[in-house]
Amino acid sequence: MNHTSNDTQAVKLSGEEVGKHNSRESCWVIIHGRAYDVTEFLPEHPGGAKIILKYAGKDASDEYDPIHPPDTLDKFLDKKFHLGEVDMNTVEQETKEEDPEEQERQERIKRMPILEQCYNLMDFEAVARRVMKRTAWAYYSSGADDEITMRENHSAFHKIWFRPRVLVDVEKVDFSTTMLGTKVDIPFYVTATALGKLGNPEGEVILTRGAKKHNVIQMIPTLASCSFDELVDAAEGNQVQWLQLYVNKNRDITKRIVEHAEKRGCKGLFITVDAPQLGRREKDMRSKFSDVGSNVQSTGGHDVDRSQGAARAISSFIDPALSWKDIPWFQSITKMPILLKGVQRVEDVIRAIEAGVQGVVLSNHGGRQLDFARSGIEVLAEVMPVLRERGLEDKIEIYIDGGVRRATDIIKALCLGAKGVGIGRPFLFAMSAYGLPGVDRAMQLLKDEMEMNMRLIGAAKIEDLDPTMVDTRNLSSHTTVVPTDTLSLGAYDALIGPKEKVSAKL
Amino acid sequence: MNHTSNDTQAVKLSGEEVGKHNSRESCWVIIHGRAYDVTEFLPEHPGGAKIILKYAGKDASDEYDPIHPPDTLDKFLDKKFHLGEVDMNTVEQETKEEDPEEQERQERIKRMPILEQCYNLMDFEAVARRVMKRTAWAYYSSGADDEITMRENHSAFHKIWFRPRVLVDVEKVDFSTTMLGTKVDIPFYVTATALGKLGNPEGEVILTRGAKKHNVIQMIPTLASCSFDELVDAAEGNQVQWLQLYVNKNRDITKRIVEHAEKRGCKGLFITVDAPQLGRREKDMRSKFSDVGSNVQSTGGHDVDRSQGAARAISSFIDPALSWKDIPWFQSITKMPILLKGVQRVEDVIRAIEAGVQGVVLSNHGGRQLDFARSGIEVLAEVMPVLRERGLEDKIEIYIDGGVRRATDIIKALCLGAKGVGIGRPFLFAMSAYGLPGVDRAMQLLKDEMEMNMRLIGAAKIEDLDPTMVDTRNLSSHTTVVPTDTLSLGAYDALIGPKEKVSAKL
Amino acid sequence: MNHTSNDTQAVKLSGEEVGKHNSRESCWVIIHGRAYDVTEFLPEHPGGAKIILKYAGKDASDEYDPIHPPDTLDKFLDKKFHLGEVDMNTVEQETKEEDPEEQERQERIKRMPILEQCYNLMDFEAVARRVMKRTAWAYYSSGADDEITMRENHSAFHKIWFRPRVLVDVEKVDFSTTMLGTKVDIPFYVTATALGKLGNPEGEVILTRGAKKHNVIQMIPTLASCSFDELVDAAEGNQVQWLQLYVNKNRDITKRIVEHAEKRGCKGLFITVDAPQLGRREKDMRSKFSDVGSNVQSTGGHDVDRSQGAARAISSFIDPALSWKDIPWFQSITKMPILLKGVQRVEDVIRAIEAGVQGVVLSNHGGRQLDFARSGIEVLAEVMPVLRERGLEDKIEIYIDGGVRRATDIIKALCLGAKGVGIGRPFLFAMSAYGLPGVDRAMQLLKDEMEMNMRLIGAAKIEDLDPTMVDTRNLSSHTTVVPTDTLSLGAYDALIGPKEKVSAKL
Amino acid sequence: MNHTSNDTQAVKLSGEEVGKHNSRESCWVIIHGRAYDVTEFLPEHPGGAKIILKYAGKDASDEYDPIHPPDTLDKFLDKKFHLGEVDMNTVEQETKEEDPEEQERQERIKRMPILEQCYNLMDFEAVARRVMKRTAWAYYSSGADDEITMRENHSAFHKIWFRPRVLVDVEKVDFSTTMLGTKVDIPFYVTATALGKLGNPEGEVILTRGAKKHNVIQMIPTLASCSFDELVDAAEGNQVQWLQLYVNKNRDITKRIVEHAEKRGCKGLFITVDAPQLGRREKDMRSKFSDVGSNVQSTGGHDVDRSQGAARAISSFIDPALSWKDIPWFQSITKMPILLKGVQRVEDVIRAIEAGVQGVVLSNHGGRQLDFARSGIEVLAEVMPVLRERGLEDKIEIYIDGGVRRATDIIKALCLGAKGVGIGRPFLFAMSAYGLPGVDRAMQLLKDEMEMNMRLIGAAKIEDLDPTMVDTRNLSSHTTVVPTDTLSLGAYDALIGPKEKVSAKL
Repeated sequence: MNHTSNDTQAVKLSGEEVGKHNSRESCWVIIHGRAYDVTEFLPEHPGGAKIILKYAGKDASDEYDPIHPPDTLDKFLDKKFHLGEVDMNTVEQETKEEDPEEQERQERIKRMPILEQCYNLMDFEAVARRVMKRTAWAYYSSGADDEITMRENHSAFHKIWFRPRVLVDVEKVDFSTTMLGTKVDIPFYVTATALGKLGNPEGEVILTRGAKKHNVIQMIPTLASCSFDELVDAAEGNQVQWLQLYVNKNRDITKRIVEHAEKRGCKGLFITVDAPQLGRREKDMRSKFSDVGSNVQSTGGHDVDRSQGAARAISSFIDPALSWKDIPWFQSITKMPILLKGVQRVEDVIRAIEAGVQGVVLSNHGGRQLDFARSGIEVLAEVMPVLRERGLEDKIEIYIDGGVRRATDIIKALCLGAKGVGIGRPFLFAMSAYGLPGVDRAMQLLKDEMEMNMRLIGAAKIEDLDPTMVDTRNLSSHTTVVPTDTLSLGAYDALIGPKEKVSAKL
Repeated sequence: MNHTSNDTQAVKLSGEEVGKHNSRESCWVIIHGRAYDVTEFLPEHPGGAKIILKYAGKDASDEYDPIHPPDTLDKFLDKKFHLGEVDMNTVEQETKEEDPEEQERQERIKRMPILEQCYNLMDFEAVARRVMKRTAWAYYSSGADDEITMRENHSAFHKIWFRPRVLVDVEKVDFSTTMLGTKVDIPFYVTATALGKLGNPEGEVILTRGAKKHNVIQMIPTLASCSFDELVDAAEGNQVQWLQLYVNKNRDITKRIVEHAEKRGCKGLFITVDAPQLGRREKDMRSKFSDVGSNVQSTGGHDVDRSQGAARAISSFIDPALSWKDIPWFQSITKMPILLKGVQRVEDVIRAIEAGVQGVVLSNHGGRQLDFARSGIEVLAEVMPVLRERGLEDKIEIYIDGGVRRATDIIKALCLGAKGVGIGRPFLFAMSAYGLPGVDRAMQLLKDEMEMNMRLIGAAKIEDLDPTMVDTRNLSSHTTVVPTDTLSLGAYDALIGPKEKVSAKL
Repeated sequence: MNHTSNDTQAVKLSGEEVGKHNSRESCWVIIHGRAYDVTEFLPEHPGGAKIILKYAGKDASDEYDPIHPPDTLDKFLDKKFHLGEVDMNTVEQETKEEDPEEQERQERIKRMPILEQCYNLMDFEAVARRVMKRTAWAYYSSGADDEITMRENHSAFHKIWFRPRVLVDVEKVDFSTTMLGTKVDIPFYVTATALGKLGNPEGEVILTRGAKKHNVIQMIPTLASCSFDELVDAAEGNQVQWLQLYVNKNRDITKRIVEHAEKRGCKGLFITVDAPQLGRREKDMRSKFSDVGSNVQSTGGHDVDRSQGAARAISSFIDPALSWKDIPWFQSITKMPILLKGVQRVEDVIRAIEAGVQGVVLSNHGGRQLDFARSGIEVLAEVMPVLRERGLEDKIEIYIDGGVRRATDIIKALCLGAKGVGIGRPFLFAMSAYGLPGVDRAMQLLKDEMEMNMRLIGAAKIEDLDPTMVDTRNLSSHTTVVPTDTLSLGAYDALIGPKEKVSAKL
Repeated sequence: MNHTSNDTQAVKLSGEEVGKHNSRESCWVIIHGRAYDVTEFLPEHPGGAKIILKYAGKDASDEYDPIHPPDTLDKFLDKKFHLGEVDMNTVEQETKEEDPEEQERQERIKRMPILEQCYNLMDFEAVARRVMKRTAWAYYSSGADDEITMRENHSAFHKIWFRPRVLVDVEKVDFSTTMLGTKVDIPFYVTATALGKLGNPEGEVILTRGAKKHNVIQMIPTLASCSFDELVDAAEGNQVQWLQLYVNKNRDITKRIVEHAEKRGCKGLFITVDAPQLGRREKDMRSKFSDVGSNVQSTGGHDVDRSQGAARAISSFIDPALSWKDIPWFQSITKMPILLKGVQRVEDVIRAIEAGVQGVVLSNHGGRQLDFARSGIEVLAEVMPVLRERGLEDKIEIYIDGGVRRATDIIKALCLGAKGVGIGRPFLFAMSAYGLPGVDRAMQLLKDEMEMNMRLIGAAKIEDLDPTMVDTRNLSSHTTVVPTDTLSLGAYDALIGPKEKVSAKL
């Protein structure tokens, strides 16, 4: 963290001095060895006052880091409240309460499967679920409302079945392709996901390194735990990165971000259009609640805890007024290709073509925004026939994200006409559980699966994948079955296989 | 309760005196400090004689209150059986038997989650299920036969998926609308539900206050625990209420009720047309049975306990002969808009338009009447295209109720053409678990969800919602899957994720 | 039992004498106080020799009774092997081994719910499952192969949903109808089911009495435990019965049966056409196996236990050569209306009309014959439109059976064009658990449901039921869902409601 | 095993001598009494070095046998590394560690149900799962990726329902047929499956004997544990066998195999076309992993254990370049009928006809190759109408395999136009659990079911089976249901049957 605005003072503050300011009336906190007076900031804190007051007069660095980009305090807290360095030797070490839940987690970490036992992307998730901190897990794994879209995203791929060709020479299989002109090893990119340090203290730079190793593109998130420059700095050689952009209400800030990204070499600008407001994710909210609210008593309506999980805490700057009218302005401030991330119906894809953007990502934000939004793969199957009918299929690059877990999922998307797919959570889980080796193995597994399945479907190269190789007739079916007949089911005596003999001893 | 017919006598009855009349031959009961001779009434009691005999010679007020509107005795028991006041000091206090089930319930109440932990309408139901009295829970939560329609009601919304618009300016979102000319904050109303005091001793006035706070309309139920006037009196300012009407076999009574409602300012008359007889709800019947019947032995057919739950006990007055022929009469006795509640096929919607009524509620009575009746939302999708085809869509206001739990459900109904939706049970559960603050929070959660989801679907106001924003192709599918292949399933060895290492100590 | 062929001898056989013949070489058994030499009969016994040898030299009456019609020995065992009366005082009382399973069953019988706790037909099945003997339960409850058709039979009704009419005058509801000219109270009949004494020692006469009380028709089964005449004798007044017929390879026997039935007043002849061979029912076979085979060791192929459950044991006489060519012969030997029971496709219904029979039962034999045969209700929906198209709908009476459990099921069948429905197992279960009062209550429950649901669908009489009142679009869909994605499901962290507070004491 | 290349030396090697070579630097192993120096071979071993090193300096015969055809060492290890005989008396007997898992398995074997308790093919699988070695079970039972195609294979049959004919004379039922001109008792053949000795030390000769007994054809697998000649030698009389062929990159080897097979009398050549590379089967890989890798620690990416289960270990010779261009060559080297095994779309069936082959097997390799490949039965329903339309249905014999478990499955395939079906795993499981008697009973059960179900569907002979007897309208539907609504489900209080009385004692 770069505290450019605070000179080192002659006499450091003492822990005792800071410790006196431990109330709503006067609230100081220590972040990375420096004290800040946040009393006036309390009501404005997007994450609510409660979480700050928990650390009033104390060192809040551990809690602060994963949620806040390193330059947050310099940007948002008036310099007059920057109180200067603290003599950390005088700060009482918080003797952490014995947290039985945390102890159990540490035990689970000891029993963690070794990396080689992960054979597919779901395995990383299964491990991460057991070894991640509960709040971090809740932030990554949660979706909107009933999480139905989130689960549909992967489930939708299961409605697509293959029509493989046999007796095709597949000795040499090449599944490299290009995305916005960049040659990549395999048709996926690492899509933008927020708050990487929740899962791993190093944050998203791990994904940068993994992407380099496997020659795929990383999309840098606006809400990364690492700063944008840290992530660009972590890239090596001619490694290509894109920028994911939440558009700020203050367009000047947005302009600065875009121009800076272009200057630093980003090769694509992905404007998020499915998040005028960040979603309600109840699993995240519940987890947050119990973190700060366990001693809170219901008081009948007033003074209610307003914390709504990590998502809401970090996103109040996003502009809900963003509209088609803003596109020409973006085109005026950058030469980067512009893509709209989060398009969800064919009408808007056509409008995007008319607006002259270079691509769209058919996405529902990982199921984290509007529940009952359709999966990207389903929208893709709606979009492509219309584009082909109108001769527009080459006017734009179409990507999808959401629910991709297997190379067969990637192949299905490409058969239907996508240029590539974005993958997010699986790499977060791999990173959270195993760090860079986890991300490396996750990507390698996808490559192994890809080679195998290209062969099995009878395609030696990406261009061989075509719509006749998939049967998508049920893709747009959203059925629930008639509710269970519980009484009948309760009375039914299910068939069972042959019974073992009763042991002789008994 | 207003005992207008009984003057206070000089000498009050003693508890001892009342206590002698504790048999089928002579049965007195005390209700709110007054004694009544109900011996002759026993065979006529809609709820059966058993439940009265349980309190013969005793104070029955607690059991009586939630089931009976306060003016019941005055209306239905001949004045000669009103025996006058009892000196309650002489009435032996029933030392309630230790009821282990009730004790467990009291423990659960102590551990009740605080209100802020409820993040959606299902949460109130989950809490209410644990803290309500079993019989009350059974009455509210039960449905007809196998409760398949009851569950289908919410499930049907899951067959509708969104086609959101992106890049729409949704900075300002306004989801207020009008219903029968009344401006409301959000397109739902509190629909009529019976016996509110089962869940909360204050009864439906809590809903009146919640509706006021959030500026939505309350529909007053015929079978409220509170009297009609109590509910109207509880309304404040220009708060709007509607009347739900079960039509009495005695039309004079019905006429009095309607005229009185109009006089007191009700702005809509909703005639229930899906309940010529109130439904068999087995969960309710089972709960009732164990309440009064636990010592009963099977006797082979005669002298059988005939109690059939709360629903049947309170509804014997409803006229099963009500028909289209009666509509003109209603139009002749009131100027209130008339709506038919419980219409279930497009043919009847058209007939309703021809009959000149102002609206219909597409409803199956919360799944409490005919099992395998279709959901209101499904019927809506059948109705609207036909009306539009015939140019009738503006001739009538169409509402639906049943299964609405999320703002996305409301939005789906409005996209399809509904003017608004009725919500019943969720507010009962919120009220039963947390009283008015619960109802308040439940409504606020819907508003929060509504604002979020209007933005996410790309609609700044109610008029922006249209049928292209939903995919309803599977809405009318009612499938069951082929019965489970239990032998194969039993032999299949499911995939599991990586195993943990065995702990070193073991 | 009528031992017409054995005079009472002067000196009765002693138990000791009989007991000597306890081997395959010489095998005597006692049935109802008389001894029989079955040594030569052993290899011919349809149920296998093993089960007889278990009782060699002993009294076998208890085991014998439910499986064998009373006149079996007289009919099938040569008179020379009828050894005469036994002095039962000299027969050693079998001190039954303590059978822990039987003891548990006796305990369950003590805790049996009282009859009034049964609120629907499934409830009887739930009780019967707990209190019936395992082998009897297995015989009644089992179906063919994977029992998929058996379960589909009820499940199919769940694919049909109602389109009720409202505002119909349903004060008076009359659901009586006629079947083959006989007026009945409600459109169901008691269909033929075998071996009633397995469930209740009195056997099918209980069903006769129940049918009388509720004025419905009983179909007398060929394989009843009671003899045909016992069942006809049990009928009272002008009670109507039909005969279900398995056609014997020996047509003379068949002719005698038919002529006798007509003479005794049967009003309909239902020839079973879906059972050229009785089905393999593995649950039944498994149950039978453990009954007689628990000490059997695998011997590699020879001397294998051939018992295949009760069904196979009793049906070897059925003629698999029965064909359309035989129909004129039946028409020549009886004036009873002839109906074909077990028709399963529209082509065969048309052929039946051409053959001049009076009706068909669309049935798959309760799911006990061909697994993956379609349900009767599904076949009905296939048949009626074709008949109507050809003007044949009045040429024949169409019945269905299989899976009927609710009055709504009956109503669905009648809406689609059935004249009535057969109900079998539910009455067996009611009879097995509660005897005649059980059957009585089961029928009464159906009447109660029928009255309620006729009102709720808006039909005052049977003729009001028409095809527009049901939506059957999914009735013929037989889908399985894509196999579960177990890895993803294992990694998914399901949403849960609010957590309780941790109790203060802990 | 025939060690033709090693003369018996005068002085045998001692166990002590061999034992010294127990490291990566010098690695000797003993196989069937002879020592081999495999040091240089370690990096080339398809199954990885680890598994060999586990036995370095020791006797590896038990592990070696089921995976390697008997002539492997002679073929693949240079003669100079054949070290000659070992004096086995001097080889230290491995005192096998107490393996608690193996002990439990031995206990389960003791309690194994007797053969007569197996009533259907699934029963053998249920037993085999309990009594087989874990790694063997994993190899047989595993499928590709999420095993969704593997499970779909059987599940697909459940989407086909029957339309049986009644009143057909089925006294005599003949379900014999011909396959490639060979008369067989029943329309199935034993399809090729690898590594039979994993399940039973005798290997695939057991299947040869079972096939003989029931007069069905056995397809000899390339990857059998027994050698090809052993299997041909085991055939008796005029027993017919076919050859399944994985095509070797070295066509000379392939040519030798084909010519040898023809010379030995094989009557059909089935070229596998769905396996250019053998599939990733994670269950198998996981099982393998824990077998050799339990002490392995994660090392961050390098020196990773590469073992990928038995499938990958044995298949590196298969030629992924095999294509349509190779077909004429096969036709030039053999007069056997040629069939393509693994065709998966109608376009390729037509191409096969054009290529002049005699048949195709519509198959997805038992779900072991490409997950989301469609079932053979589904592809059959796609293929036949097109062939009939073009008059091609008699140009070729069409077989299917995958998921056949019941005679009804066979009947469904034949109704749709298949000449016969292949059955693989069920016989492996029967053989693994019960040896030849198991295979015998499994085949007999299919015959019993076949006779029964031919009767019940109304077909006296194979030719009577036609497409009108099945309803396949849902066969190509691949749906998943909308993800579960867990919150609602959690709050729902399911209906339950009547409760038992509380026991008097309590």
